[in-house]
Amino acid sequence: MIDNLIASVTVIIFNSNRKMSISTTPTTKEPNVRAGVEDLMKRRFFITPAFQIYGGVAGLYDYGPPGCAIKANLINFWRQHFALNEDMLEVDCTALTPEIVLKTSGHVAKFADFMVKDEVTGMCYRADHILEAHVEKLLEGKDVNEEKKAEYKHVLARAGDAGQEELHQMLVKYGVKSPDTGNAISAPYPFNLMFQTQIGPSGQLLGYLRPETAQGIFVNFRRLLDFNGSRLPFAAAQIGNSFRNEIAPRSGLLRVREFTMAEIEHFVHPDRKAHPKFCDVATLKTNLLTAEAQGTTKMVVEMNFGEAVAKGIINNETLAYFMARTQLFLHTVGIKPERMRFRQHQSNEMAHYAADCWDAEIHTSYGWVECVGHADRSCYDLKVHSEKSQVPLVVFEEFKDGPKMVDTIDVKMNKGLMGKTFKATAKEPMDFLDSLSNDFEAGLTFKERLDTDGQAVINVNTNQYTITKEMVTLTKTQKKISGESYQPHVIEPSFGLGRIIYSLIEHAYWVREGDEQRCVLSLPAIIAPVKASILPLIGNAELAPFVHRINRLLKEAGISCKVDDSGSAIGRRYARTDEIGIPFGITIDFDTLKDDTVTLRERDTTKQVRIPISDVTQTLKQLCENNSTWQDVVTKFPAFESN
Amino acid sequence: MIDNLIASVTVIIFNSNRKMSISTTPTTKEPNVRAGVEDLMKRRFFITPAFQIYGGVAGLYDYGPPGCAIKANLINFWRQHFALNEDMLEVDCTALTPEIVLKTSGHVAKFADFMVKDEVTGMCYRADHILEAHVEKLLEGKDVNEEKKAEYKHVLARAGDAGQEELHQMLVKYGVKSPDTGNAISAPYPFNLMFQTQIGPSGQLLGYLRPETAQGIFVNFRRLLDFNGSRLPFAAAQIGNSFRNEIAPRSGLLRVREFTMAEIEHFVHPDRKAHPKFCDVATLKTNLLTAEAQGTTKMVVEMNFGEAVAKGIINNETLAYFMARTQLFLHTVGIKPERMRFRQHQSNEMAHYAADCWDAEIHTSYGWVECVGHADRSCYDLKVHSEKSQVPLVVFEEFKDGPKMVDTIDVKMNKGLMGKTFKATAKEPMDFLDSLSNDFEAGLTFKERLDTDGQAVINVNTNQYTITKEMVTLTKTQKKISGESYQPHVIEPSFGLGRIIYSLIEHAYWVREGDEQRCVLSLPAIIAPVKASILPLIGNAELAPFVHRINRLLKEAGISCKVDDSGSAIGRRYARTDEIGIPFGITIDFDTLKDDTVTLRERDTTKQVRIPISDVTQTLKQLCENNSTWQDVVTKFPAFESN
Repeated sequence: MIDNLIASVTVIIFNSNRKMSISTTPTTKEPNVRAGVEDLMKRRFFITPAFQIYGGVAGLYDYGPPGCAIKANLINFWRQHFALNEDMLEVDCTALTPEIVLKTSGHVAKFADFMVKDEVTGMCYRADHILEAHVEKLLEGKDVNEEKKAEYKHVLARAGDAGQEELHQMLVKYGVKSPDTGNAISAPYPFNLMFQTQIGPSGQLLGYLRPETAQGIFVNFRRLLDFNGSRLPFAAAQIGNSFRNEIAPRSGLLRVREFTMAEIEHFVHPDRKAHPKFCDVATLKTNLLTAEAQGTTKMVVEMNFGEAVAKGIINNETLAYFMARTQLFLHTVGIKPERMRFRQHQSNEMAHYAADCWDAEIHTSYGWVECVGHADRSCYDLKVHSEKSQVPLVVFEEFKDGPKMVDTIDVKMNKGLMGKTFKATAKEPMDFLDSLSNDFEAGLTFKERLDTDGQAVINVNTNQYTITKEMVTLTKTQKKISGESYQPHVIEPSFGLGRIIYSLIEHAYWVREGDEQRCVLSLPAIIAPVKASILPLIGNAELAPFVHRINRLLKEAGISCKVDDSGSAIGRRYARTDEIGIPFGITIDFDTLKDDTVTLRERDTTKQVRIPISDVTQTLKQLCENNSTWQDVVTKFPAFESN
Repeated sequence: MIDNLIASVTVIIFNSNRKMSISTTPTTKEPNVRAGVEDLMKRRFFITPAFQIYGGVAGLYDYGPPGCAIKANLINFWRQHFALNEDMLEVDCTALTPEIVLKTSGHVAKFADFMVKDEVTGMCYRADHILEAHVEKLLEGKDVNEEKKAEYKHVLARAGDAGQEELHQMLVKYGVKSPDTGNAISAPYPFNLMFQTQIGPSGQLLGYLRPETAQGIFVNFRRLLDFNGSRLPFAAAQIGNSFRNEIAPRSGLLRVREFTMAEIEHFVHPDRKAHPKFCDVATLKTNLLTAEAQGTTKMVVEMNFGEAVAKGIINNETLAYFMARTQLFLHTVGIKPERMRFRQHQSNEMAHYAADCWDAEIHTSYGWVECVGHADRSCYDLKVHSEKSQVPLVVFEEFKDGPKMVDTIDVKMNKGLMGKTFKATAKEPMDFLDSLSNDFEAGLTFKERLDTDGQAVINVNTNQYTITKEMVTLTKTQKKISGESYQPHVIEPSFGLGRIIYSLIEHAYWVREGDEQRCVLSLPAIIAPVKASILPLIGNAELAPFVHRINRLLKEAGISCKVDDSGSAIGRRYARTDEIGIPFGITIDFDTLKDDTVTLRERDTTKQVRIPISDVTQTLKQLCENNSTWQDVVTKFPAFESN
């Protein structure tokens, strides 16, 4: 590794708001699955450390052909399932972002992890990671009494959420040293996780690579609202790369420095979070780990989404609707239902403005991994960008039953007198009086005070002004207003695609009974990197025209396929296609010459049918688009038993 | 603009190797088309300057919903047409790149433009741009005689290719000043166009954002070769974002700082550049502007690819095959055949290692724009990475007719004696002698010298060594070798997707005769952002169930559609769908209630047919997948005349 300043500890916590977390919930380790999956991914070039010929760079991975195809299929299906099906407005914004945007969003100040440095070598470590690794060792020690055990466990639970000072105290208390050298370490200090660069030739415009795609949607809110005919609710979506300069990346695809996200920002009226299609998902069952349970029983409860909203467990229908759609998405792409749950954020991990957050977590050999966040972020993002840019990011909505007359205070100032009286700061009391026309209650109170006392004292910033009756005339009146403006709330499902890809490969991986060499990747056809293999039984020239013909037929139909005419035994070739997840195999043999039929083999069952070549394309197309099942195929075509 | 340090000149040249260029070939300006297209793209949110609420950043654009959909469709079709159809190995590599990779490739030293600064304000300009703008003004002046005219034209032709010193001389000669202030300018100096950043927390690992996707493929060559069963030829492909810190970006999508590329690297044996599928494209006609013609007649010639290869105009079949595939791709996505040509690089714009380069240029209102480069890059990239990383990026190929016996020199050294004699630098003569076993001719010559003279003097680096007969025994012998290693050549088609998108929108844009308000975007269905609009004739509750049903049917079939039940007149709604290029409109009227039929309207002809709802999905699917034409539809279903 070029960037070899990485720490080598094993427990992972990451609970900062708006960052993906890998939970510490203790789970059964499955080292064999992980070793098998990692060997497979490396051997068959699903992924590889980037720039490996130069030693690699920690946290950067390239996708090879099968990984790349899985990713493209996942993105296409995501676009179909979310963006197209729900009429979302998909956008594609730049990763390069000027500083002002990320300062406003809070990332420049707060998107940081605590880091310590080895005082001799200068090696960098994540403070919480090395604290945890140290305390875990203490916990494994002999002669640890129950009291100490409880203390250590408390430290482990706190480390990920602890602030700078608390972390420092704990590092000092337990005498934590540099894990690689035993040297003293620095006090922890925040390290911002954004990659910095300069935009333009002058060197004067500081920029960052976006750490999330969401900001591109927020800053385009006005254009999007306009595109949607000024109507709410609507959702915008974006698929793209984000960048986080992790201090010590590891866990393969689970924590990397450049990764693809798919994010949705659904904008709604603050008081109208019902969803018209919620009825479609209300009876869908799900596994929920509530915030309350995390503090008490730690039990996951199964209930349907309708019940969860009715009981106030999930804050509103729109949030629940997206959670349900996410669940359907994950099940379809191959995540096992029993290894998926939604975990609610506890109050200490949720931003102050957020109403409710639920992470879709998937169980892997690394424990429960957060793969999709679902957050009701209230109006935070639009509010801060609106204030900073001075562009109103609001929705104007006409009253349904026509314009209304409302009470108001008409304000007429004697600006000459005020200017003479207050001189340089006259704008302050003027702005104050102006504002009364938009706040009837305050205006009325002030008018009454002025009417009674003949004058009134006001404070603006740190200045005091005495306003007299001569300076302003306030009249109670009515005005016609046709609607109201409001800042919408936003509900945000945010997908980490690399994590989903790793998880679904782990879930799809198994080994054929009695043959530890033959692993299988039971990826659903919609996600499989290649849909069909074409296998001439032997390397005979007579079979070659059939190989070409079927290859061309499938390609014309847009079905990806791979010819293996390598001459290896057919069983060996099946095994090679099984392990990269190719769901169907088409074998051409000498009967093909006679009757223009081939065998079609299904990967998981290894069952085969005999099928006319003229039926192959349509049959595969339906299977791969989820419009028919292998059972349908078995019913329709005669079984084939290989010798 | 936050980054307002941009120059405001109008002629654009950019001819550095491996950069996209916009040609200065004089062309008819089409200001109306450009104004119309730009208005449309802005108004209907195809693209927008990024971070506009903060004033924007020069050279950064976001794609809104229609632009984003066109881009996604273009990428999907590219993947289908190139990667899947040609069995390419698609990869997905990181944009973050450590310095060593781009130093090796030559980008750190050479990927630069010449910049000048306003000596008072510090504003930055591209040296060639402001020289050109200045000389163009001179050219337009009164009293310019023929001699001067020729001189100015020569300067305009040279500016883009001139080196630092030549540019400096020309700037001084014509007294060029800062265009915005008239202040003096600095001498030109190279400004590297790569965005720099630091990877990891230590601040010690310098990185860049990739300026092209190709390097990710080159550094993964060994894994790719292995994935392909160690066989050549094969092609790898990558679609992804690249970043170039342009000094003065303008021309909308044509020159931006972050953009999506699709690149192919086709690896072949240096002497075997025939292509097995060349026969499929040999008779395809194309427009060629050869290097020779650019220096002489300036004429584009039409000929077919077979002829061009036979005559040696295009260097080899593989290069020509990819050019032909590119042409088919561009025509299918909507580029007009008569506004497309291939321009060959002249010797002064081609890298020294390149064998031949052809740019697919598309004619737009900006002139001829390079959209796809096709370069035979010989073995340059693999060679430099191989040398620097010390990882052999070569192909080993067994001899077809079995192992061969070849002459060789067996080298036996007396290492003890050599060590004693040459001490610290003994490794140098030892490596020299070792190398003789791989070079029979040199070995034999050296052996003969040693046999004759008893000793021989050699120079390694700057050191001289006298080798005696006691130090080494050289024996002429034979060894069996089973094949040979070689560094493959690479042929690279490289697509700038943003430029293609802008060009195809310009080509698709027109205005209905007699109605300047009604513009139409005749995008092919495969590229159109939305495939069908669903339009209830009036906002009647009885029609609503049909809208929902058709909407659901199309979505289930994966056909993107957009309901417009806004209540505007139907003609107005058609116009709205025409201008964003929706090819088909489904209108629900009161006859629908009676007989379950709708009208289906085609955008370009505005002709309509009456079609049963049960036939709509299949009909649209075939139209959108290029499996049938509107003519087929008109033949099959009765025409419908609207009132």
